[in-house]
Formats: sequence, structure tokens, C-alpha cells
Amino acid sequence: MLDLAIIGSGPAALTAAIYAARAGVKTEVFEKAKIGGALTEIDRIENYPGFVGAGSGLAENLKKQAELAGAKISYGTCEKITTADASVELMIDGELTNARAVIVATGSEPKTLELDTTTPISYCAVCDAPLYKGKNIAVIGGGNSAVQEALYLSEIVNHIVLYSHSGLKADAVLIDKIKAAGNIEIHENAMPTKAELDALDGVFVFIGKRPATTFLPADLLDDKGYIVTSDFAAAPGIFAAGDVRSGSTKQAITAAADGAAAALAAVEYLKR
Amino acid sequence: MLDLAIIGSGPAALTAAIYAARAGVKTEVFEKAKIGGALTEIDRIENYPGFVGAGSGLAENLKKQAELAGAKISYGTCEKITTADASVELMIDGELTNARAVIVATGSEPKTLELDTTTPISYCAVCDAPLYKGKNIAVIGGGNSAVQEALYLSEIVNHIVLYSHSGLKADAVLIDKIKAAGNIEIHENAMPTKAELDALDGVFVFIGKRPATTFLPADLLDDKGYIVTSDFAAAPGIFAAGDVRSGSTKQAITAAADGAAAALAAVEYLKR
Repeated sequence: MLDLAIIGSGPAALTAAIYAARAGVKTEVFEKAKIGGALTEIDRIENYPGFVGAGSGLAENLKKQAELAGAKISYGTCEKITTADASVELMIDGELTNARAVIVATGSEPKTLELDTTTPISYCAVCDAPLYKGKNIAVIGGGNSAVQEALYLSEIVNHIVLYSHSGLKADAVLIDKIKAAGNIEIHENAMPTKAELDALDGVFVFIGKRPATTFLPADLLDDKGYIVTSDFAAAPGIFAAGDVRSGSTKQAITAAADGAAAALAAVEYLKR
Repeated sequence: MLDLAIIGSGPAALTAAIYAARAGVKTEVFEKAKIGGALTEIDRIENYPGFVGAGSGLAENLKKQAELAGAKISYGTCEKITTADASVELMIDGELTNARAVIVATGSEPKTLELDTTTPISYCAVCDAPLYKGKNIAVIGGGNSAVQEALYLSEIVNHIVLYSHSGLKADAVLIDKIKAAGNIEIHENAMPTKAELDALDGVFVFIGKRPATTFLPADLLDDKGYIVTSDFAAAPGIFAAGDVRSGSTKQAITAAADGAAAALAAVEYLKR
């Protein structure tokens, strides 16, 4: 039986793996899609202290560090978690796995938007930008991620119309950059019409995230679906860390710290 | 007048500087000794997610990132902080500086130990190890830092006797390493006698830290001298982050995250 299963492989999950494995705990990480989670969709990260570069590069560093510490990293989708006596039962790809404890660090997924248009909609600039080289697109959203993604796209596409349903809420340094980009037209307090969208080649939507917690019992979640914790524990043997945890600060660096603290709490729990 | 003064330059302080400067806030960091704070005394850091190497290398990365974001980094010892109307008065090297807000991130200093011996006592392996090349020393302490420092010293000195007044409390992976080192003799639940110490060339003491808060009013501190905060605020305009904050997890990664969250709280405060 595993000592500790970690669900997800973003900065919270991989930092938890580093800390748990270094404490001598038999640890396995289960990732359903891409190792690094949301990091792999960030073209360039500048506010993670100690690392500047592609999100995928930071993800690669974290993965190597977790493996070096002795954690196993596997692919697998966790479909259900239930507590059983002194252990936790995980349904992973249809098969039961037992662990003495679990840290859920599945992060969040993009919020989707119902748009009345025939133009294709994307939620990931790094994934889909190559399809729009030299073309005209819209970006919808006004926070840091929308503005950062618009900047990234502006180097590849011909022209961007940025729509924010409120005023722009991104960091001043980012707003200065999109104003200086030259090919980004900013519409604050405005949403595009069907006619405006249909005239474009693509639409990118960055309007926030929602927690990836549909596989968990509802009584562990707050009204928005985030996991409610006390000292990182949601239930006996079930811990949560990172963006998925109710009340967490949604940044790569705070998610990583959450992972460290949740691992320390899980290691204490396993000692008892 | 500055928007934000940050006292200290460890991972909490420099991450706060990165976040505040990126938010367009006029930020200056004041460090009394070495940029990077306690990081500069760590020979090798392996559990900071995304960076493996010398602590001084991580400190250098953080400093560059803070400067790139637009923060100013200065040397200066903060001797006193007082709140005045809508600003904060800082006494730095005997001169008054005004800021609209301050983040205290001064970390902690080694706890000292009264030892009855004529043998020299050190609290910093990276600083003093070269003096003991090929010699015989004692290390006192049983936590992660004592064991890590003993490992570092074992590569330089001839022989180490490690004394821990309790059982070893370091991570299993570190304990395995000191057992494998070959020149470290471990005495658990034991402290050295005067005769034992006098027979050695040097003693290194790593028995924990105490907060660097003597320049602050006592009503902001808990009974151990750490700064008491609510949402990172200790008083109007006075924020705290990192090891110096009461209740914080004492790790480089959690200190960095603390700095990010304190900066976000300070930026919110400055907007009001």
C-alpha cells in the first residue's frame, strides 16, 4: 500500500511530492493529462521567485526534483476517493488503489463561456496559437491571465480585439505592455456581439477558473466547489493543497507553498 | 515618499518586492547585512521547488527578478518603525524615511547557546567551515538544519561528533546521509561535556532560530517575539511576511509565498 497518493501534478502536487518523499514517505503522484498541470499552459512565468521562463520548464524542474527525492510519477485519472478504516481508497482509471493518505492538488480548469458564434473558441493560447498565425482574433477577459495570454498571442497573430466585461484588472506592468504591443485594441466594459465574433478567425476566452473537484464528495466542498480544509485536512487522511483548496491564493508560488505545508501535515498524520 | 518599504531581503522580502513592483507600487527593499538573508548561509538547497543549488544562487535570482520588476534594493538597518497619520516612519541608519506602508520580512537569527568551553563557537557553516579544514569539530542540534550543516561540514573537516539533546528530528533522507557519511559520530539524547568540547578544534551550534524583531513595538509581537498578523497586517500600514510572522511555516518556499500574499494585501491597502 502507498503511504501517500497525490492527485494532480501542478506546483502544489509536485512540491508536496518533494516534501513527502524527502521525509521518507512512499509517495506516488497521479496526473490525468500533462505533468505540470496548468503550468504547461503558461508561455512565460515571471513572478515565480527563483525561476523565469516557460511554465513547461518550471514543470520539468519540479518533476525532476520530485523524482530525485524518491517520488513516483504516474499517469492516471482519479475518479473517486473514499475513506475506508485507516486508509483511503482511490478509483484510478477504473482500478482501486489504496493509500494511507491522499493530497488532492488537482487545481482548476478554465471557466467556459457560452458564445453565440460560428468562430472557433479556445481556452489555451499555448495550445492553439499556431492555428492563428497572421490571423485576426478576439481575447475575452481582463485579469492577469487574459492580458498575459493576449501579449503572447500578439506576437503570433495579426490583430487582437481584447474585450473585458469590466475594467482591466491586470497588474499595471502588464497593462503597459498590451498598450505598447501595437496590435491589441482594448475594449473595456464591453462584450463582443455575434456579428463582431463571426467576422474573426478565432476567440480565446480567459475569464477565470473553476476547481477540478467533481470526483469528490460534495460534503468536502464549499459552494463554489473548492475543498474546505482545516490545517490542510479535509477529512481524516484526505488533504488538499493549491488552487483547489478553499481560501488559497491563486498563484504558482502560493500553490507550491501550500503543497509543502500540506505534505508536512500529511507526514505528521502518517506518523500517528 | 515611498509607496512600500520592505525590511529584509530573504525569500519573503524579495518575493514581496517582485509582486509589489509588478503591481506598479514604488518599492524599496532595505537589507542590513547580506542580500538574500539566511539563504546566503545555505550551502545547498534541494527542497525549494524549481531551484536546486547554492542558497546564494537562489538569492541572486530573486534579487535580479525584483530589480527587473522595478524594485530598488538598498543596504540599511531599520532601527524603528512608527505609524504616523496615513504613513509609516522608518528610522534607517539613523535617518527618517517615510513610506505609505511597510512589509517586515526580517526573518530570524540563530539561537545562541552558552557553552562552557575555550573552543571557538560558530553559528554558520558556510561562513566558517574553511577555518576547520581537516580538523575535528562538534555539531550541536538534531533538526534539518543541524543535519544539513553537519553533512556540508563533513566534506571539509576530518571528523564530526554530532550531539542532539533529543532524538534526531531531521528528514529521513538526511539522516540516512549522515549515517552514510563515514566521519560523523552521532550522539542522540546527549550534550557534550566541557572536557569533550575543549578537546576539539571548533563547535557549530544549530539549535533553531529566533525572530529578528527587536526594532518593533512589543504590542505587535507574540510571547516568542514573532509578529502577530491578521491577513498579513500587524497594524494599519504594517505588514509581515515569512519566518518573522507568527504561525508561519519556516521554509524558504513558504516564506516566498508569504511574501507574495503580504504584497497582494499591501497593494490592496495602498489602493484604498
